[in-house]
Amino acid sequence: MSRAKDKRSGRRPGASDSRGQIAVAAREKFAELGYEHATFRAIGAAAGVDPALVVHFYGSKQELFREVMQLPPDVSDALVRIADGPREEMGRRLAELVLASLENPATRPIVLGRIRSASSHPDAAALVRETVTRDLSALTRAVGSNRPDARAVLIGAHVVGIALARYVVQVEPLASLGTDDVIDLIAPTVQFYLAGPLPPE
Amino acid sequence: MSRAKDKRSGRRPGASDSRGQIAVAAREKFAELGYEHATFRAIGAAAGVDPALVVHFYGSKQELFREVMQLPPDVSDALVRIADGPREEMGRRLAELVLASLENPATRPIVLGRIRSASSHPDAAALVRETVTRDLSALTRAVGSNRPDARAVLIGAHVVGIALARYVVQVEPLASLGTDDVIDLIAPTVQFYLAGPLPPE
Repeated sequence: MSRAKDKRSGRRPGASDSRGQIAVAAREKFAELGYEHATFRAIGAAAGVDPALVVHFYGSKQELFREVMQLPPDVSDALVRIADGPREEMGRRLAELVLASLENPATRPIVLGRIRSASSHPDAAALVRETVTRDLSALTRAVGSNRPDARAVLIGAHVVGIALARYVVQVEPLASLGTDDVIDLIAPTVQFYLAGPLPPE
Repeated sequence: MSRAKDKRSGRRPGASDSRGQIAVAAREKFAELGYEHATFRAIGAAAGVDPALVVHFYGSKQELFREVMQLPPDVSDALVRIADGPREEMGRRLAELVLASLENPATRPIVLGRIRSASSHPDAAALVRETVTRDLSALTRAVGSNRPDARAVLIGAHVVGIALARYVVQVEPLASLGTDDVIDLIAPTVQFYLAGPLPPE
């Protein structure tokens, strides 16, 4: 709490720039190295600031990860609004939103950094669990089909698998396909998990 | 080559037991710690042997990973034979094979160790790429639908995502579902990627 207050009250001119640079550098390092190896030292070096400033702004690595790896509010909002559109196009719209986030240099490190970190560190795993159960379940609950929580995990799992294969492990031909082609390929699956018939629990 | 010859000719009584214990321990450590942190020392300790014996048997960590993380031949064989069965049940049979491998304590570390390692190390990533393009593409080519290589990656990506969510990140409700329920949930998607209509390239 006192640190959160510090953040807002203690800024000197330029502090918000440093904070933003640190956030960008932290996302890049989490995506490139995973949670464990993305040290304050590595993040400070990438941001061009003293590692002590990273600690000053964010306190612990867990707080830093939690804060900089949130999806931007416009992405979270767009996610839930998918339930408002035409029912038969929800899968395509969600696939479009996912690919847009993955192809955007500002958001790709957030998605890849979570995936890379989640498979190796409990803090990151907890954040990924939270996102799936909050952001994606908000969508599947709004859609109103049976078993919304199972649907959210199935969609999250598919997105994670596609992101890993395309951007991290870079398996061909997926790694080189155009964005529109990937959307065409996965949209029917996303649609099925959003609104298709799932067996009852 | 000379090492491979050593392996076969130089065995003393008990060597094959040590070798097997090392293989089991290595799979467990790769699954638990990922490629980088699964050191010869950690693997030797888990196997109850001197780390030098691990080096003696396998030479380099890359060779060790490559050898112990292969799918057992019966799993590879079962994979390709799926194309011989009823066409409309291929997805279910593949889902059953995947879940059986993931629920079996002997093969689960192979799948999880590859996934955990692939997202953090190029050697492991290369092995995972090879498996997808060889084992899964052998199946999708045998099935005979269009774009067999894209289908293989899409299936591989979905399997990896499900395995990560269920066993590594342990997202609920997926982590606690019964095996049969998981098979029911993913079989239609696997069937779609094996034999459903994909847009042309």
